[in-house]
Amino acid sequence: MKFASISQVLEKVSVLSQADEDTVAQVRDHQLQLTKPPGSLGRLEELVEFLAGWQRRAVPSLDRIQALVFAGNHGICAQGVNPYPQSVTEQMVANFKSGGAAINQLCAVYDAKLSVIGLDLDQPTNDFTSTVALPESECLAAINAGAVSVDPEADLLILGEMGIGNSTVAAALVCALLGGPVSDWVGAGTGADSAGIDRKVKAVKKGLARHQHDFHDPLRVLMAFGGREQAAIVGAVLAARHYSIPVILDGFICCAAAAVVAGLCPSGLDHCLVGHCSAERGHERLLRELKKEPLLCLGMRLGEGTGAALALGVIRGALACHNGMATFASARVDSAEGTLT
Amino acid sequence: MKFASISQVLEKVSVLSQADEDTVAQVRDHQLQLTKPPGSLGRLEELVEFLAGWQRRAVPSLDRIQALVFAGNHGICAQGVNPYPQSVTEQMVANFKSGGAAINQLCAVYDAKLSVIGLDLDQPTNDFTSTVALPESECLAAINAGAVSVDPEADLLILGEMGIGNSTVAAALVCALLGGPVSDWVGAGTGADSAGIDRKVKAVKKGLARHQHDFHDPLRVLMAFGGREQAAIVGAVLAARHYSIPVILDGFICCAAAAVVAGLCPSGLDHCLVGHCSAERGHERLLRELKKEPLLCLGMRLGEGTGAALALGVIRGALACHNGMATFASARVDSAEGTLT
Repeated sequence: MKFASISQVLEKVSVLSQADEDTVAQVRDHQLQLTKPPGSLGRLEELVEFLAGWQRRAVPSLDRIQALVFAGNHGICAQGVNPYPQSVTEQMVANFKSGGAAINQLCAVYDAKLSVIGLDLDQPTNDFTSTVALPESECLAAINAGAVSVDPEADLLILGEMGIGNSTVAAALVCALLGGPVSDWVGAGTGADSAGIDRKVKAVKKGLARHQHDFHDPLRVLMAFGGREQAAIVGAVLAARHYSIPVILDGFICCAAAAVVAGLCPSGLDHCLVGHCSAERGHERLLRELKKEPLLCLGMRLGEGTGAALALGVIRGALACHNGMATFASARVDSAEGTLT
Repeated sequence: MKFASISQVLEKVSVLSQADEDTVAQVRDHQLQLTKPPGSLGRLEELVEFLAGWQRRAVPSLDRIQALVFAGNHGICAQGVNPYPQSVTEQMVANFKSGGAAINQLCAVYDAKLSVIGLDLDQPTNDFTSTVALPESECLAAINAGAVSVDPEADLLILGEMGIGNSTVAAALVCALLGGPVSDWVGAGTGADSAGIDRKVKAVKKGLARHQHDFHDPLRVLMAFGGREQAAIVGAVLAARHYSIPVILDGFICCAAAAVVAGLCPSGLDHCLVGHCSAERGHERLLRELKKEPLLCLGMRLGEGTGAALALGVIRGALACHNGMATFASARVDSAEGTLT
């Protein structure tokens, strides 16, 4: 799918479909028959309900998993916000393509098909302290790059990102969308020292002052700060919803992009899980604001979709239990006195 | 390995080996060269260090994973502590053997070889409110049943348990070993209602009063309350340490058994991870007492080793990153200015 204009994005958001509650009810019914005390698989049971509701199948499947990693470059790097040179974005894209990054290994272990989409890497967005990072036409192009990348037949979609400087962009996005002190949202990213963090805070403050009149409109906020990979995530989240594909979001930067969708429509992320809580400052608060309980909390802060891919490992276990376990009847196991039968 | 007597168990505990710090240092060195900001894989990096230290290999492997589930029956069921009939223990063992339980599905997904060991299921332990649950010779036999089950060649060992009534046994064990109010340690188990929980609390209190003079000796505590599956877990934990095999412990009941080892020697569980924090009351506190940070926290409370098996899924991801990622040099990625090279 593809949007003809930014206003079409808004139209799409106004007619979002919901999960299939009948399918969820069938799953709950089946879970009560499995050889375990009711509810004893905890979150694993909720995960299967979630998959079933969005896949609209009482026996969900995880045969075709797509992982999309979007990469972009950022004019804000001119403000000295990142210890790595901007050349690393393109080098890491090459590393993804040759299979050497963390996300490659995780996609191999948990069986997801990885695609990496570099977005005009030779053309960084504008420095948001002095102008709009992503003019409307470029923002639309990036949203569409995300939307068209989604495999309509996927059973589940993993989203991730890479882009030197993009934790500063993410902090600016969530500050503008959700408010709160800048220092709550700015973290070390790839490993900024305290002087680097000060530069990030300063850059975000300057950007917020410049673009403050756009804060009422989440898509204007996206254009103000960028970047292309964030816009692509917005497009991919919306396309997945269009196809009713459940999504696993990754860490702070990925979720900051998704917050644009939540800003457009409060139920806009209902088809999205958050794979993990990142160690990057801001993610925990962002998850509270988005009302999302992460699946994992392992102190990771790499991005690339790694936290989301790791969560796929857990989801595979959840589904295997649901689809493979015997029932009390089939296994001839007595149930609790009076509670089940 | 096998113990000739209970005093041999004590001897074993006095000469425990430690992890190989040189190997851990090699792993840390290699991690700094991988194409990611230093430390950005968080706990995944620590997991590989842990595996390497105990496997004594700088490139750890997870080719041969053993999962052991021990099952036992408990005289304490006479006190009405469980809503399920005791017949369920044997029926669930049959279910494990025919592949229908949750642990079977998880072992299949994450590739662990599962063995289920029913321990004298037709001969429940004594009711600990009136006498010692497990006389010394039976306790030794159960410890040895655990110890001999461990595959000396395993790369990693997953431990789990099943036994109607055994959450009451676990509560009594940790109360005796660690103190604190009984109500802090007694939970719903397989699904006791409030009257059932009251019966559990009453049974534990009665048992504690009867056996209070044994609390100074963790092995006497084990004999006092049982059960066989707890004793087998003690034996398996010690055998794994003997072979330097890293272990993943499961939920409250498994960790309560392991607490006997910690009671014998404070570093006795250094080779053990805890796979998850169970929803069963008492587990969170027990983990604090054991100074263990669980890998997962998903509201599970099934036992069977399911939380430990799910954690194996995460550990596989951690090791794949470490063993498969490119280095900055091999991928020709620039490192941070001045921080790495």
